[in-house]
Amino acid sequence: MATKIPAVLPGGFRDYPPSEMIARTKMLETIERSFRRFGFDPLKTPGMELENCLTGEDPEFGMIIYRSQLSRGRVAVEPTALRFDLTVPLARFMAANPEFPKPFKRYQVGDVWRGEKPQAGRFREFTQFDADTVGSASMLADAEIIALMVETMRALVGDGFKVRFNNRKVLNGLPALAGFEEQLLTQVLKIIDKLPKIGADAVLRELGRPRRDQIEPEEEGADQVEQEYGAGLLPASVEIIAKFLAIEGDSGSMLDQVADLFRDVEVASLGVSELREIVDALDAMNVPSSNWTFDLSIARGLAYYTGPVFETFLDDLPQIGSVFSGGRYDGLVNRFMDGNIPAVGASVGVDRLFAALTQLNRLPKTPTVTQAFITIMDPKYRNECLRIAGELRSAGISTMVWFGQDTAMRAQVSYATRQQIPVVLFYGGNEAETQTVAVKDMNARKQTSVARTNVVEFVQSILK
Amino acid sequence: MATKIPAVLPGGFRDYPPSEMIARTKMLETIERSFRRFGFDPLKTPGMELENCLTGEDPEFGMIIYRSQLSRGRVAVEPTALRFDLTVPLARFMAANPEFPKPFKRYQVGDVWRGEKPQAGRFREFTQFDADTVGSASMLADAEIIALMVETMRALVGDGFKVRFNNRKVLNGLPALAGFEEQLLTQVLKIIDKLPKIGADAVLRELGRPRRDQIEPEEEGADQVEQEYGAGLLPASVEIIAKFLAIEGDSGSMLDQVADLFRDVEVASLGVSELREIVDALDAMNVPSSNWTFDLSIARGLAYYTGPVFETFLDDLPQIGSVFSGGRYDGLVNRFMDGNIPAVGASVGVDRLFAALTQLNRLPKTPTVTQAFITIMDPKYRNECLRIAGELRSAGISTMVWFGQDTAMRAQVSYATRQQIPVVLFYGGNEAETQTVAVKDMNARKQTSVARTNVVEFVQSILK
Repeated sequence: MATKIPAVLPGGFRDYPPSEMIARTKMLETIERSFRRFGFDPLKTPGMELENCLTGEDPEFGMIIYRSQLSRGRVAVEPTALRFDLTVPLARFMAANPEFPKPFKRYQVGDVWRGEKPQAGRFREFTQFDADTVGSASMLADAEIIALMVETMRALVGDGFKVRFNNRKVLNGLPALAGFEEQLLTQVLKIIDKLPKIGADAVLRELGRPRRDQIEPEEEGADQVEQEYGAGLLPASVEIIAKFLAIEGDSGSMLDQVADLFRDVEVASLGVSELREIVDALDAMNVPSSNWTFDLSIARGLAYYTGPVFETFLDDLPQIGSVFSGGRYDGLVNRFMDGNIPAVGASVGVDRLFAALTQLNRLPKTPTVTQAFITIMDPKYRNECLRIAGELRSAGISTMVWFGQDTAMRAQVSYATRQQIPVVLFYGGNEAETQTVAVKDMNARKQTSVARTNVVEFVQSILK
Repeated sequence: MATKIPAVLPGGFRDYPPSEMIARTKMLETIERSFRRFGFDPLKTPGMELENCLTGEDPEFGMIIYRSQLSRGRVAVEPTALRFDLTVPLARFMAANPEFPKPFKRYQVGDVWRGEKPQAGRFREFTQFDADTVGSASMLADAEIIALMVETMRALVGDGFKVRFNNRKVLNGLPALAGFEEQLLTQVLKIIDKLPKIGADAVLRELGRPRRDQIEPEEEGADQVEQEYGAGLLPASVEIIAKFLAIEGDSGSMLDQVADLFRDVEVASLGVSELREIVDALDAMNVPSSNWTFDLSIARGLAYYTGPVFETFLDDLPQIGSVFSGGRYDGLVNRFMDGNIPAVGASVGVDRLFAALTQLNRLPKTPTVTQAFITIMDPKYRNECLRIAGELRSAGISTMVWFGQDTAMRAQVSYATRQQIPVVLFYGGNEAETQTVAVKDMNARKQTSVARTNVVEFVQSILK
């Protein structure tokens, strides 16, 4: 006998067994229904693309992606790689199909791959569920994405979440406002992003702490960790950012204060008026105001965002981070073609959201979709059992007939019990004689003898 | 401005735009509903697996697969590759999770990748939709797979198809019956497989034609094509196979004749009695006999099949080949673990079936899911338009509000027309004054002024 091959997965990959997939499928259906109601249409792009499309030929492209190569020595003309999100492929699709009527509103659900270090709850393959509007610069499109996020989350978790949004344009005004160099902005935003986690005092301390490049090389210990470096801002700059971070109130009043603070910084003022348009539209659409708020600490990591940015946090699980995020990226399609095609969208982190909803008991787990289980008591009556199965299925009831290796009744009933199948049917000699079927309601633990002709109706009444 | 990156896909890959995806999603939903009715449960395995799991460490593994490798020089401990089907990953999953109650009935839909030469209608990424029963050696499981194939196809195309099945065990009896070497069987089956295409006479001629290894190397022209070689069988062997191929009649009578012909060949006799069990169960389940037949030319290419094999052909498009195929593979899980876990299943070739149904006009194409389109006549009434959209969406109507770049009414209506959106709504100064909405039924080309409070109900009545 040949050596056995170990049945293992590579690190960072996992299976979803039925007990999880049944609930996950339900969750995806809810998302899809919500996206369709807003008029987003399905698109499918391949899992694999040309590598330069994905990386944008950026020499500083920081993501670790999977390259794909043909086995058996066949050399591909151009290097291919697995997609790491669904947004870059959408931009490529739009550039390849300029004839599509715009606005083009599309949704896509699909797996993406990133070679990041596997961690608890972090995988190298994960599913994204995106909705994007391409070809509209109107803030109505951004407001609609937020409305979509709120409606979708409400369908999934009720009221226990908040969509938080900001505008990159406001944040882009910070160097001018606080008097620091443009090139420090990324590091400053990275620190401000920690606000909900570490609080304003710690953020301000970190903004003032020396940067890596400000520390003499000889002083730098080899075990110095990244987090100990700051942004190296002058005290006057930190003071101004402190004022910015201290802004409080409802979205409208916060925007007034931000506008006042940035009144001499053009890009930020534009950002504020965009946000005001969004707030106005959200109010008009009656999007529940408890589910959204302007939040000046939201920055989003990805480089391609150019305007409003959105994140979604669960009230009861803020520590897992944003489960539904996005923003406006007016320059991405530009990578592939001349001319400006503005775009805005958001993406559900399906695996993270699923883990969260499971933890919150929002997704009851069942081991099987099967509703009715037909035992085989006596092979002589097997064909009649098959006939009953056919009738139940015709009525839309998920039905299984036993054909396991162990034909003992004990084994059959124990299978049905373990699989939590709600209805079990028995048809043997007695039943054949009396033209009945014995039907057991497994939850009520009650067995009933039902006329053969009424079996479908009776099973339906139990399942109701 | 940076050089533009060409927005192209690697050869053998394609996008599915909304006009195709909307119909494709509907098709997949029909398949899923049917699979669930038979009690199959969803499973998800990763797109990427360890390469040795996929190839079985078979040195003669003939498939060209995609290897995946991390970019940025990170070396993976073990080589990984993209799955080429969903069956091998299922076998790996079963071996990794021996605690799962059996029979384990699972369905899975997912993309697979093969590095075959791209051809018209043939792609390197394609979708499979599989249903398998693991852990039952009973022919009831095989019969159920055939019943599932028939029910699923009926839901998709009505009556215009046939599931054709055979048994590898019968075919495995051919060398003993016709007196040729076991090792020639693969070549013989490859030729018999052409029966529906080229007819019995051509098949018999080819069976008798010399094999490649029977032709002297010096005689062999460099441009000799593969198809011109035969199986090199002796005339007596060809004569016996001719008898086999001449068997005609309904499934029952054909099986009688096959049984008679193979009465001294044990493996084939076992195969015939298995097929009889299947036919008996199909009759009991009332599976319409016009949709299934025993067919002695069905062999299936894949090496792992060990018993019954199934294929599905569309009456009106036989030339596209089988759209839903499978068989019993009792040894595959064995690759990963000791002990025998029998299994049987079938897989829909989603892309091929979709192409066929499109060609047969079975899947009406629509460019969008949007049912109602709200124009913006005057920005002053924009908020009321957003409110109407919210009301329509709450009633489950897919609704879009115009926020394209071109605000001219002509551009808005032309977009709605091109997207074939059935209902277009107008709300401007006149409507605000009279508390109405102008609603246009685009198919009936009829515009109606509707009370503002009745707009949802009216749109619903048009969509009915």
